[in-house]
This record gives sequence, structure tokens and C-alpha cells, in this order.
Amino acid sequence: MTHPLFTKHEDTLQKALTAVETRGYWSPFVEMPSPKVYGETANADGEAAFKALLNTTFDLDQPSTGETVGAEISPFGFPLGVRYPKADPDSLIAAAAAAQRDWRAAGPQAWIGVCLEILARVNRASFEIGYSVMHTTGQAFMMAFQAGGPHAQDRALEAVVYAWDQLRRIPADAHWEKPQGKNPPLAMRKRYTVVSRGTGLVLGCCTFPTWNGYPGLFADLATGNTVIVKPHPGAILPLALTVRIARDVLREAGFDPNVVTLLATEPNDGALVQNLALRPEIKLIDFTGSSQNGTWLERNAHQAQVYTEKAGVNQIVIDSVDDIKAAARNIAFSLALYSGQMCTAPQNIYIPRDGIRTAEGIVGFDEVAQAIAAAVQKLVAEPARAVELLGAIQNEGVTQRIDEATKLGRVLVESQTLEHPAFAGARVRTPLVLQLDAANDHAQFTKEWFGPISFVIATDSTAQSLDLAGAIAAEHGALTLSVYSTNEAVLEDAHEASIRGGVALSINLTGGVFVNQSAAFSDFHGTGANPAANAALADAAFVANRFRVVQSRVHVEPKAAPAVAG
Amino acid sequence: MTHPLFTKHEDTLQKALTAVETRGYWSPFVEMPSPKVYGETANADGEAAFKALLNTTFDLDQPSTGETVGAEISPFGFPLGVRYPKADPDSLIAAAAAAQRDWRAAGPQAWIGVCLEILARVNRASFEIGYSVMHTTGQAFMMAFQAGGPHAQDRALEAVVYAWDQLRRIPADAHWEKPQGKNPPLAMRKRYTVVSRGTGLVLGCCTFPTWNGYPGLFADLATGNTVIVKPHPGAILPLALTVRIARDVLREAGFDPNVVTLLATEPNDGALVQNLALRPEIKLIDFTGSSQNGTWLERNAHQAQVYTEKAGVNQIVIDSVDDIKAAARNIAFSLALYSGQMCTAPQNIYIPRDGIRTAEGIVGFDEVAQAIAAAVQKLVAEPARAVELLGAIQNEGVTQRIDEATKLGRVLVESQTLEHPAFAGARVRTPLVLQLDAANDHAQFTKEWFGPISFVIATDSTAQSLDLAGAIAAEHGALTLSVYSTNEAVLEDAHEASIRGGVALSINLTGGVFVNQSAAFSDFHGTGANPAANAALADAAFVANRFRVVQSRVHVEPKAAPAVAG
Repeated sequence: MTHPLFTKHEDTLQKALTAVETRGYWSPFVEMPSPKVYGETANADGEAAFKALLNTTFDLDQPSTGETVGAEISPFGFPLGVRYPKADPDSLIAAAAAAQRDWRAAGPQAWIGVCLEILARVNRASFEIGYSVMHTTGQAFMMAFQAGGPHAQDRALEAVVYAWDQLRRIPADAHWEKPQGKNPPLAMRKRYTVVSRGTGLVLGCCTFPTWNGYPGLFADLATGNTVIVKPHPGAILPLALTVRIARDVLREAGFDPNVVTLLATEPNDGALVQNLALRPEIKLIDFTGSSQNGTWLERNAHQAQVYTEKAGVNQIVIDSVDDIKAAARNIAFSLALYSGQMCTAPQNIYIPRDGIRTAEGIVGFDEVAQAIAAAVQKLVAEPARAVELLGAIQNEGVTQRIDEATKLGRVLVESQTLEHPAFAGARVRTPLVLQLDAANDHAQFTKEWFGPISFVIATDSTAQSLDLAGAIAAEHGALTLSVYSTNEAVLEDAHEASIRGGVALSINLTGGVFVNQSAAFSDFHGTGANPAANAALADAAFVANRFRVVQSRVHVEPKAAPAVAG
Repeated sequence: MTHPLFTKHEDTLQKALTAVETRGYWSPFVEMPSPKVYGETANADGEAAFKALLNTTFDLDQPSTGETVGAEISPFGFPLGVRYPKADPDSLIAAAAAAQRDWRAAGPQAWIGVCLEILARVNRASFEIGYSVMHTTGQAFMMAFQAGGPHAQDRALEAVVYAWDQLRRIPADAHWEKPQGKNPPLAMRKRYTVVSRGTGLVLGCCTFPTWNGYPGLFADLATGNTVIVKPHPGAILPLALTVRIARDVLREAGFDPNVVTLLATEPNDGALVQNLALRPEIKLIDFTGSSQNGTWLERNAHQAQVYTEKAGVNQIVIDSVDDIKAAARNIAFSLALYSGQMCTAPQNIYIPRDGIRTAEGIVGFDEVAQAIAAAVQKLVAEPARAVELLGAIQNEGVTQRIDEATKLGRVLVESQTLEHPAFAGARVRTPLVLQLDAANDHAQFTKEWFGPISFVIATDSTAQSLDLAGAIAAEHGALTLSVYSTNEAVLEDAHEASIRGGVALSINLTGGVFVNQSAAFSDFHGTGANPAANAALADAAFVANRFRVVQSRVHVEPKAAPAVAG
């Protein structure tokens, strides 16, 4: 009765199970866009496939009104011109309900097998998806390929394996036999049926449509639910490609492809989303986006299990370092990577106003601030190199926020507009770094300034820095906290602050790992323990409530003889 | 580093882990009030201990205003006269916060060990707790002992073992090492800290204070949370005894006993509970009670994870039987047991108006209805025997509901007032059975009539019966569904109806198992898939979101050599 797609991918599944238990390094999807792995012509083919999609109607055989929608514009300076079949939410809900019965009845091994086959095919489309991520999010190609391709696939597989880890614990049946002393035992056969919740709604974001969208999509599918994928209107294409692959696999495996559908929309789709999110048929919602929208869902979509990732204030505490330049280089890279448009990018950098200890003695506050400023300036000094790190700014809201933030304090590094050597109209801005003071600027640095905006903040002491870090994470949310210290007691205090703030801690990053990065199967992304997210990617809590168990019981003949009277 | 209480109870824990995986019969707590197990004088000692509590102030060394509260009245006809230390919710929240830090830091093995030690001692107090359950809930002694003692302890242990099953999957640390081609690998040590949510609030009910209260209490404790136990004002004593034992164990194990506190209240404590339930410090709420209050918590206590068990409409579908008398006996017992005041007791019994097939041919609707009526009458014909099954009515609201229900339709069995041979003032009422019609009485039988009230309902066919059963469970909630049929196709349809309704199904119960009964480690109590409960007792989803994981990571020396250039 094992599903052939389950058998086909069982080896990967077993390795993934071991990986989430031991949490060492593991990835089945190769992150380097290597011709040896993906094929000699994979890059060129993927780019050509992406270009062939431009200014056409996206081919997707699902319920549609017959009209088309779509208004994506590449942050690198041109409209994509892709039009998607317009769908009526009512039709998608009805189609999902019709697809549900056979899908639910297929059971866990079929759900898992289909998910793993979808992922294998999505992996093969990594270049096409990579270019589509690049030209919707503004990520430079290397990041778009890695984060939008293999790393997103890793996170999806992680959700699938967590689902399987829970599903496999539910026995299909059991023999229950209760002794009754001298009388024959009571014996029953029990049957346990995993029942999916119904239809899930995945609400994508415009910066990491696949990385943030896949975990909910695959967690829903892996637990037998149907899914409506509603991408951000600014980043539809990567999820449209994914949905098309998923539908192909479902169809080939004998299922109604409407198990997964796409709801493409025009910008300003807030009312449509709110109406859909409250529909009684929608039992699961996965959301990445603003705190306002995420909190609205948490407080209003009572009929659904709601998983949110929202805004936060990521922080760095500098107490002491051996090599300030190495620390500054690492920090500057974190600020510049994708122009600070990662949900994990640092914003607040706390430095005691009396300076810090280094291997070369005390270094003053201004000198530390200047070291960071210099490292940022060096990273973006050469535009052709810089744009491969910065990418482009996703939308005008971010550039406006940079301009607004410039007025907040003393400017340590100005945000400059760069010309992109390959894309004339690209929206490229270098990071803005400001100096603030913990004593005066609390109202400003306790909120998220999404984009390439960071604050070097003078504090009275490392103790104050850690107090701020823990309290701000707990109250305003945070996905990352970073600390630099050569003092074990301070590191222990930082650990305590991270516990108070419910935020993941990185210690003394000066090499090739950056605080923004989170590795599937090893790093939990988000904790669910502060307002930045009500769930972690991924853990048991992310999947265990996406399905339920319905049992039946009936008397059978006992296996044991009654006890001999004693 | 293993906690001694963990070591002491590890064998029980391992057996419980096996039990929840295989779901056969298992129980570590003996359900028979046997002198051989509990001691020759255990019953007498327990009753004496209970009586010694009457008309005294309950000894509980926790933050108090210095005043006392308490107005419990035994359904068997006398006021308990027990006064409890009055506590200010602010003080209990502050005390829980103060106790939290050391308790959280102690870690999973200490939490589990302490829980198991508390349970072992609660088990030894089963007689005292049994009498206190009897004289608060109105259960006859045997049920009060079993359901309030060993069976409640089983459900508590089940929650603890599910918690451990999730906690043990979080490694304390990991070595992560990512190859970098010809360069040395990136290597990090990662540390994973289980972080409890904070303070849990357990809101008890007046019919099964321990059975329904323990799972949340022990799930919270087992995941490192502190807990405020707020019993129903009508059934404080069983939970007060439990809290006192828990505090003793905590104190002896070196913890602040305010990890668990009692909030005893006077009747009409709704406003107090609502204020407390919205406090930001309350991160977990476990509630058993009315749909109105449960839904209010689900919709308003956004700062907390909320687990509810609410009202529902339990149903029996009779299609065909070999032996109608055996079926009727089993059904009658289910209606009479604790006067239908179990959340699992059946209410609606659907019978086709054209009658049913039996081994002796077609039996008409009236004859089936009469068989059930006769079986009920026989069960309660002898008052001295009847009261050991019926117990007493918990409160006047239930007796008023019986009187109100009498007007709903044709009375098949009248509810009679019985004199209790041992307790002159006991509030004893026999079950009321009415005849309704699916065509006319939909508005009446789609709501819960809590108490000894049931309806024999004429339907057009078994197909209509099953449609009603599935739809009513899905819309109004249900914890149990029972079907009688000798036809495999009907049983398959019943299975589908149970899936649609998200309700556990019992098939052809004619012997020593009753639909009201649910066995820990084997039967999931509730599904979380219909409005009767948003969680099941117990499963991974019941525990996995009561804690979070906060990680840290720091570079270490790689263990592997860099790859040789190829």
C-alpha cells in the first residue's frame, strides 16, 4: 500500500529525519548554481525560460473568470508584463473542496510522496524560479537562486519531514484488550484516521515569496490539506511557477490538480484577502508580511489556525572584540546583503558610549562606529560589485523610508543611489547608517525601519545594551540577536537576554556566517516566542495542528485468556 | 545531570511512550479501589481525611489576602463548609513570575520528574480525592474514585508523556559543519534551550474537576510553565488537594512552590476570570465548560494559547442490530451513568421511522424506542442500586433543564426524583427520555441539553440519521458518535459521517464498554476537529506549542579537513 512516490523519495525523507534530530549541516538541494549539478545549459535555459514568460499570459489550467490580472514590475527597472488567469475566490474554494475528498483519503504516504516529488521538480526549475525571484524581489541573482531556490526547497522539505515525523506516530489501528479478572477481557479493534483540516491559504510576501511561502504550502499539503496560494501582487511569478509544477505532479499522480491553486491579484488586494481569510472553508492561514496585517489575521480569522511572520527589530550588541575590523566587515555585509530587506537583517547596533575592549586596548565609541561605517562604504564603493550584494530595492515604500530615516540622527553613512551596470532602471540604494542615543531616541529605534537602514546606538553600558535587546525583542519582536564579546559572563548574560526576548542568538560572527542567514534542518527560523512570529520554521508545533485524528472502535475477540482466579 | 525524580520514574515514562505509540490497553494507576493495591485502611483513611476537611479552613501556604472564600455544596445534600485562602490574582501572577526563572532553568528532565512524582503522590491520595470529587460533582463513589482518581491520573500522565516525546527531540546542542570546497569548512556549535511560555491558567469544571483539569495542568508543568489553577467555584476541593500535593513536591525538590498556585473563588466569578484570562502574563489557558465561555476565551485571549472543551451533541445511530435488548441495555447505561452529566453522554438517538432489521426480523420504531425506555426504567427501578449509577445532579440548573425538556415532546421515560438511602438531601433524578421527530424538532435536538435528557428521534432512513449525525457534529460539536449496524456498507457510511463530523465513532457497543468511556493512551478524547473542543486529549498538538526553543550559535574549530580539490 506504500505510495510509489513515497518509495521513490524515502531515502531523502530518512536523511531529513536524521537531520532535524541531530541538527548538524545537511542539505539535499545544492546551493551553488553549478553546471555540474544542474546541467551545462541550466543557467541559460532558465534565463531563457524566464524571458519567454515576459509579456505573455501565464499558462495555468485552473478555474478562471477568463480575465487576466498581474502588474509585477522588476526592481531592476522593467515591467514583467506577465498576466495570470484571474480567479474568483469562490470558485477556488469550491474547487478545493471538490479536490479534497480523494486527496484526504489518499493518506499520509501519498501526501508526503507527492510533496517530495513536487520539490524534486521545483529543484530542477531552480534557475527559472531564481530569475523570477530576482525580478520580483530585487535580489541579486546569486541570492535569488540560493534563497529562492535550494534554500527555500530545504525549508519546504523541513516542513514535510516535520509533518511526517508527527504523522508516522499515529498508528492506523490498534488492538486494545483490558483484563477483567476472571471474566474474558474486553477487546476492541481501534482504527485511527488522519483527517486534514480542509483548505489552507498561503499569503506570500514580496521579498522572499518562495522561502517564506513554501513552509506553509508544503506543511499543508503534507498533512492532506488543499491549498490556495495567494502571492503578494508584486511577486506572483515564483509562486505561480511553483503552483504549476505542483499541479502537474498532482495530475500525474492521479489527483485533482485543484488540490493546489493560485490566486493572482492586482495591487491593493487587502479587502479581497480579508474576505477570503474569514471564509469558514479556510482552516489554515500562513502569512508573511506586516505586523498590522498579521495581527489582524491572528485576531479575526478564528475559524483558522493562523501562522504569522511579521515585523521585528533585529539587534547587535557590541561589548568587546579581538578584531574590530573583522567584526565590522561581518556586520557591514549583514547590513548590505539584499539592501537590508531580509527579515533577519540587523537594525540596532548597541555600543557603550565609553567604548569597548579589543585585543589592542580600549577603542572609543566613535572609532567603533567609524569602523562599521568604513566597512559599509568599502563594500559598496565599486558599483558593479556592490549591486551583486545589494540587489535592488523592492518597492518605492522602501526608498521613501530611507529618505525619512535620514532625518532621524547624525548620518554616519549616507545612502547613495547607484547605477546598475546591467539594468539601467534598477532601483539601487546603498545602506544608510545613523548614530542614535539610547537616552533620547527610544521611540525611533524600537520600531522596524524595513530596508537598508541601521542605527549605531550609544548606550551607558553593555548591561544596558542587553537590557534593551531583550526588552525590545520581547515587546516589539525580533528574529535575530547578535553579540560580540570576549567575556564569558557577558555571553551568559546575552544568552539570558535572548531567552527573555525569545530570539535566536549569534555569537562573535566574524567569518563566513552572517546573522541574517538561517540554515534549514539546523537553525530554527523565528521562535514563536516574541511578536515577530507566532511560529518557528519548522518544528512540531508548526505541523501538529494542521491535521486531526478521528478514531473508531469495535469489539473483537480477545487474544488473551481470562486470568486464573488467584 | 539527570534529575533524580526523572530517574525514579523513568520506567513508567518509557512504558507510557510505548503505550501512546501502540495505543493498546495500558494503565499504571489501578482503577479498582482495592485494599490490596491501595492499602487495607486506604478507603477508611481517605474518607476520614475528607471528613476532617469539612467546615475548616484549607491549609495552603501560598500568597493570600488573609481572607477566605468557598461555598461548595455537596450534591448529596450538605454544604462542605471548606474555606480556602483568598488570593489576589495580581499576587499569584507575581508569585508565578518569581518562581518561573529557576523552574524554567531546571530543564525538561526536572519538569518531567517533578510531574511524575506529583502524580505518584496524587495516586496515593486517590481515596481522599475520590470522596472530594464525589461531594463536589455528585458522582457516585465508584465513579468519583475511578474517573477522579486513576483515570484522571492516566490522562495527566498521558499529557506528560506527550510533552516528553516532543521535548526529547530537541537536542541540547549540535555541531554544524558546512563544507566550503577547498577552504576550511564553516563550523559552529549550536545550543538549543527549551523556553516555557510563562504562566498557564487552568479553568476547571464542576463535573470532572480532575479528569478535565489535569491534562492542561500537567502539560503546562511538563513544559516548564508555572500554573494558576482556578477551579469551578462548585468543585474546588479536588483541585485544592492536587495543588497542595504539587506544591509539596516542588518544595521538596528545591523549587519555589508558587510554580503552582490555587485561585479559589466564590460563585459568579465570571468577571474575575475574564480579567485574569486577558492578562499579558497568562500565556496558556486550558478551559472546560460552556461554549459561551470557551468561545469568548478563544476570541479574546489573543496573548495566550487557548485549549478548550465545550458543549456538544453526542449521537447514536441505530440502523440494525442482532439483539435489540443488548443494545438497549448498553445505551440505557450510557444515559444513566452519572445522570448523563458526562461530556461524552449520548443525547440524540436516531431510529428510522420504518423500524430496523434484527436477527428476529424487522422491529418497528416504537418497539425499539420502548426497548430503550424499558432498559432505562429497569436500571433505575431499585433506588439503592440506581443511585450508585446515577450519582446526584450537580446543580439546580440541571434539574431545571430536565423540567424544561419535559415539554419538548412525547415522554417515553419520565424523570423521577429518588430518595438516596444514605444521603437524605441528595439531588437524585432519573433520566428523561423523549420522542422527537427529525422532520419537526430540529431546533431542539441540535443543541446540547446537558444532564439526564435524551431524545429518541424518528428519521426517514439510516442515511438521514447519518447525515444528521455528521452535520450536527460538524456544526454544533460532538465528542462521541455511536452506531449500531450489521451492514458493512452502513458502517463504512458511518465512518465517513464521523470523518465529516470530526467525531470519534463507537460501533455496536453491546457489552462492557460504553460510548461515554474514553481510555487514556488509546482513545483520543475529543478531536479538535469540531466545535466541541479545539484540542484532543492528548496528542502532539496539545503540548508542542506550550514551549518554544531559543538557540544560540558560535564558531568552533572544524572537525573535518577541507575537501581535496578535484
